[in-house]
Amino acid sequence: MPEYFTIRWLDGHVQMIDQRLLPQEVVYRDYIDVEGVAEAIHTMVIRGAPAIGAAAGYGLALAAWHSRTGDAALMHAELMHAANVLRASRPTAVNLFWAIERVLRNLDARTPGSVDQIREIVLAEAQKIADEDIQTNRQIGLNGQALVPDGARIFHHCNTGALATVGYGTALGVIRAAHEHGKKIHVYVDETRPRLQGARLTSWELKQLGIPHTVVVDGASGHIMRTVGADLCLVGCDRIAANGDVANKIGTFNLALAAHAHGVPLYSVGPTSTVDLDTPNGDAIPIEERPASEVTHVGECQVTPDGVQVANPSFDVTPARYVTAIITEKGIAYPPYLESLAGLKKGN
Amino acid sequence: MPEYFTIRWLDGHVQMIDQRLLPQEVVYRDYIDVEGVAEAIHTMVIRGAPAIGAAAGYGLALAAWHSRTGDAALMHAELMHAANVLRASRPTAVNLFWAIERVLRNLDARTPGSVDQIREIVLAEAQKIADEDIQTNRQIGLNGQALVPDGARIFHHCNTGALATVGYGTALGVIRAAHEHGKKIHVYVDETRPRLQGARLTSWELKQLGIPHTVVVDGASGHIMRTVGADLCLVGCDRIAANGDVANKIGTFNLALAAHAHGVPLYSVGPTSTVDLDTPNGDAIPIEERPASEVTHVGECQVTPDGVQVANPSFDVTPARYVTAIITEKGIAYPPYLESLAGLKKGN
Repeated sequence: MPEYFTIRWLDGHVQMIDQRLLPQEVVYRDYIDVEGVAEAIHTMVIRGAPAIGAAAGYGLALAAWHSRTGDAALMHAELMHAANVLRASRPTAVNLFWAIERVLRNLDARTPGSVDQIREIVLAEAQKIADEDIQTNRQIGLNGQALVPDGARIFHHCNTGALATVGYGTALGVIRAAHEHGKKIHVYVDETRPRLQGARLTSWELKQLGIPHTVVVDGASGHIMRTVGADLCLVGCDRIAANGDVANKIGTFNLALAAHAHGVPLYSVGPTSTVDLDTPNGDAIPIEERPASEVTHVGECQVTPDGVQVANPSFDVTPARYVTAIITEKGIAYPPYLESLAGLKKGN
Repeated sequence: MPEYFTIRWLDGHVQMIDQRLLPQEVVYRDYIDVEGVAEAIHTMVIRGAPAIGAAAGYGLALAAWHSRTGDAALMHAELMHAANVLRASRPTAVNLFWAIERVLRNLDARTPGSVDQIREIVLAEAQKIADEDIQTNRQIGLNGQALVPDGARIFHHCNTGALATVGYGTALGVIRAAHEHGKKIHVYVDETRPRLQGARLTSWELKQLGIPHTVVVDGASGHIMRTVGADLCLVGCDRIAANGDVANKIGTFNLALAAHAHGVPLYSVGPTSTVDLDTPNGDAIPIEERPASEVTHVGECQVTPDGVQVANPSFDVTPARYVTAIITEKGIAYPPYLESLAGLKKGN
């Protein structure tokens, strides 16, 4: 097991590893209010759909924990405000909204009488979200590894490992489970511009897990599939629409197109909390536009001329027809997704 | 006209702009021997298939110019050695080999008697290659711009501008010609990892030409085509096989797959010297593997963990079926390419 953690609650603090500094520096940061957590999500100290879901839960817990009010109704109002602060941090991944709703819904259902009860309920639910995430991911790994042939050459995009979750990972969890089952696999790691989560984070996690891998630029996937070959692609997801369209890190769609052209199956991997039946299709998913500086600079190095215009969509949508199957903790959904995803969600 | 030059001969020196430092620094370097020129090609002080063809011609001219022998046969031998030094600098772009053969063939044909005659003939031919390149590119631009609709949104990969040639550019020359013809166009500039020729060089050239453009990461092309739309892709070429398979900068194939999936035509643009009828298809094109450091580092910044394994193919092959047409100075070749390309080459 790797000796790091993505996020945890400790005595009224939320601690997160600063993923912007990895792999060169391992720095943990401490948060004591919801504004700090929202800023950590927005600036990508923490990233990965399941991890920001957990962060949102803990953000609400911090709001309750450090509130000075003795009035339950006022604390409710403070939590509603905290929820809005968190909701504004990143728009695409649905797990953020899901975690917030889950905590708030739980609170409403129990109509607590005292602020201490509210504190306990909010923290307990946040903790439960975090704890469940690891179990969910282990089950995803078990379900998914059955699809990984021995000797598989696997393409992976962005980071979906322990760092993108509370622990174990989603798509990288499948890779890890296959490795733990003794399968000899090799992972092609898309570096994943602009923030290089593949080059920085995925390669770091794979190294610690002892899983053989090769980092490549995002533009190389088609070439490698054509000349070397690949057996499958495993990617994460930030929101899955009811029809099976998948929003994920920018570059996923291009990888899916390369896979499709070469008959390589592409699996989207995530918890059922990422499936959003209220979003009918990919066009209804808000795509976050992030700062131009992510493209114009790498670390301290400016790579473009001054003042250049940049488009920096942080996610893309892979239409369902390019997605071979969706691997979740409740099973594997195959097309037609409108039925299979609804079926999995009902099992909630 | 931009106030810079890519390469020129000046009084027994070859001067090149150092493309590794652009756009932050404009530095010209001076070369006085063939080893220096070969190193400049290898380290990508100069890059772009037509530009390295011109550099190879001038490299031979330097070998002849600074030779101390008075014996014509010995100078011949020296030139054969210089040719081999140049041939070893980069394997994929055929223009390098084409320019060397052209200079040497010309020399053989004229069977010169004195070393001074050899010097003159070699330099004259190198100069002719360089001068012709600009005229060739202007004709390519004229031929190609007819295919660019007014209002076109154009995807472009790598750099194919004045910097990739002796002047004017190939695919970027078509864009420039369309702009000069008064067409309102917008260029999506693939940043082109790992060396970021799009972000660094193409955006710099487009800025100076006053052509509106947006820099995007390579992984964003499919998303932008799906959501914003695109009208055509214009890319360069480093070698075109007899069957129309096109070797070009890594990432071109993924762009072609995105274009194909969205019904966007993709045009490969280059001089007929890039068409190599002796190469039957793309599988016969040697693909240069470049240093891992191009992927692990951006400028001074290391982005990957220490010791990570990297694959860094510098080029890919786009199979002919994904290439809508090939734009050359002698006309536009359409499928079936085996016939159309042979026809264009016969016109030599």
